[in-house]
Amino acid sequence: MKQGKPVADEYEISKQNKVRQIREYAVYNKEAVHGVLDSALIAAVAFVQDGQPVVVPMLFGRDGETIFLHGARKARIIRLLEGTGTACINVTLVDGLVYARSAFNSSMNYRSATVFGKARLIEDWDEKLRALRVISERTMPGRWDELRAPLDNEIKQTGVIALEIESASAKIANDMPDDAEQDYDIPIWAGVLPLAATFSTLQSDDRLLEGVEPSAAIKAMQGKVL
Amino acid sequence: MKQGKPVADEYEISKQNKVRQIREYAVYNKEAVHGVLDSALIAAVAFVQDGQPVVVPMLFGRDGETIFLHGARKARIIRLLEGTGTACINVTLVDGLVYARSAFNSSMNYRSATVFGKARLIEDWDEKLRALRVISERTMPGRWDELRAPLDNEIKQTGVIALEIESASAKIANDMPDDAEQDYDIPIWAGVLPLAATFSTLQSDDRLLEGVEPSAAIKAMQGKVL
Repeated sequence: MKQGKPVADEYEISKQNKVRQIREYAVYNKEAVHGVLDSALIAAVAFVQDGQPVVVPMLFGRDGETIFLHGARKARIIRLLEGTGTACINVTLVDGLVYARSAFNSSMNYRSATVFGKARLIEDWDEKLRALRVISERTMPGRWDELRAPLDNEIKQTGVIALEIESASAKIANDMPDDAEQDYDIPIWAGVLPLAATFSTLQSDDRLLEGVEPSAAIKAMQGKVL
Repeated sequence: MKQGKPVADEYEISKQNKVRQIREYAVYNKEAVHGVLDSALIAAVAFVQDGQPVVVPMLFGRDGETIFLHGARKARIIRLLEGTGTACINVTLVDGLVYARSAFNSSMNYRSATVFGKARLIEDWDEKLRALRVISERTMPGRWDELRAPLDNEIKQTGVIALEIESASAKIANDMPDDAEQDYDIPIWAGVLPLAATFSTLQSDDRLLEGVEPSAAIKAMQGKVL
């Protein structure tokens, strides 16, 4: 059997993606990094304007090693990412507060992923449609096929940036407090207060046509935890 | 009565903080911007390294028009923010998915705030202690006074950046779908799926001393929604 180029399980560690602080939380495994990316609804996207950093939250979706970022075609960030070299995006989900026995060791539990890559504006019509589908399905699974086809004018007004992952890393903290040994004698409560982002109950639009119900795919989102 | 310099209720709109997309969601009112900042636990902080954008999640706290960012003293971001001109931070909380009758009008409900300002490393010992208290109290209200005083070595190892807000804005979307008029005839469900980040039940550390209970301030966090 002919073998293709082997696909690495891990992102190579470089100056760009190396986790510098609290290295024991560092994760370079691709599947784990993808998992963090796919759990988040919004990415913080950084770019440089007139030499100054700017960070903007964007809708996004991942397909393999490609991240698609969504905005208005005429939006500043779409224009600037188009012209930028390597872009950087971060997603972070906070999973709890870690109450240690000192302020110094108090912290949070979280999942965070950072991705670097070249940003490219998608000009090809079919590629753009596929990218919009990816973003929609990552955010609202099952919805794309329920909706009418996008209109030409809607596609024209939308800007989609494709970012091929050049390097990436994640940091995942899911711990009880790690206190200094002598602090364990202090008679103070310590532990974790978990935080969870949960979808609740669907709220119907006032202008819903009579007898129209949400699909099984949409109903299944209720109660889901990010 | 002698009057000081009048304090404006709103951030002045400039090229820097002007909301460019979906302007009807733009908020420049200081109290509203502060409210969004204070609801978030993590800020996305952007800086420029070798001409390239980098974005890092950081613990933070707000006191008036000052944002304090927390990291290890030797962390790259603390060193780079120290040398940077204007820094940019964003916080975003997603409040729900907006299922419209088209992919184009589908969106999210969210609260987002973006702040620009000069970053300054806090060198003064007392100012640093005050800043650490602000960050702690914004994140874990009431905890600071329950804990032993920080040790000199702990304060030395911690880096705190002060960012005086130069300009800021928020975007707040809290809507049902806004569909194209002709799409309201499509027999498809539309509405909102709310998302809420909620603190759940305290989990005690295994090494808790016998009989030690969480304080009323910590217990009061349970069930709180961001």
